[in-house]
Amino acid sequence: MFHIKIITTGKIKESWLISAIEEYEKRLTNIASISWIILKNDKELEKETMKEKAYVCLDVNGKLPSSLEFSKMLITLLEKEGSSLCLIIGGPDGLSSTVKKKALDLISLSRLTFTHQITRLILIEQLYRAFEIYKGSSYHK
Amino acid sequence: MFHIKIITTGKIKESWLISAIEEYEKRLTNIASISWIILKNDKELEKETMKEKAYVCLDVNGKLPSSLEFSKMLITLLEKEGSSLCLIIGGPDGLSSTVKKKALDLISLSRLTFTHQITRLILIEQLYRAFEIYKGSSYHK
Repeated sequence: MFHIKIITTGKIKESWLISAIEEYEKRLTNIASISWIILKNDKELEKETMKEKAYVCLDVNGKLPSSLEFSKMLITLLEKEGSSLCLIIGGPDGLSSTVKKKALDLISLSRLTFTHQITRLILIEQLYRAFEIYKGSSYHK
Repeated sequence: MFHIKIITTGKIKESWLISAIEEYEKRLTNIASISWIILKNDKELEKETMKEKAYVCLDVNGKLPSSLEFSKMLITLLEKEGSSLCLIIGGPDGLSSTVKKKALDLISLSRLTFTHQITRLILIEQLYRAFEIYKGSSYHK
């Protein structure tokens, strides 16, 4: 069983997004638990992130992996970090250099800018996809 | 007023996605009309695409623009093509070389693989974002 903690800012009100995220979390139940830490602003996010010993940042200027590469990166990190990993998603102004400096890695989902709602949806689906690739299922073909 | 036709395969059943897409289309009402041509398979998609005189393909190996670059590309193409543009999204096996060869351009939303549902959501939000950038609004900051 893997544990993934996602630290980010901004509440989600959109019911369509809540349903979609819940659906992926349900599908992940047997392989990984996902916990979300939703903070008010970048200052709180930095404070919370500094408590983590190992984390990866989602940053627009980070590496641009394919889904196969993302799966490999994720599983390698989880195995190295005792099955637990923390992912940090920055607010609209990006992450501070203090946060990025301590990160194990910087990953970019795309060069495009997404709303934080869409970022969360993409991330949870990629996490699900990453574990399906790891299990060798036919989800990612 | 701009006109964007999106040709793709696979029906959408997820109510959360239908709501999200409708929301962006509503917001686009005053600047662009979006029409979706949903076909059964890649063969039908190729046949339909060949009727179009000018189109752009969404392809995983295409250019990876930022949202600002995507906006500029989109507006330039729309101005060149008489305010109308057709976008082609391939199925899980990608687009055929016949379809890609005739394309004005190949654009990639990300190196990651998305479900076709998430691809449509990303695309409609990026179209909305592209027009907001063009109008100089504060949506994309």
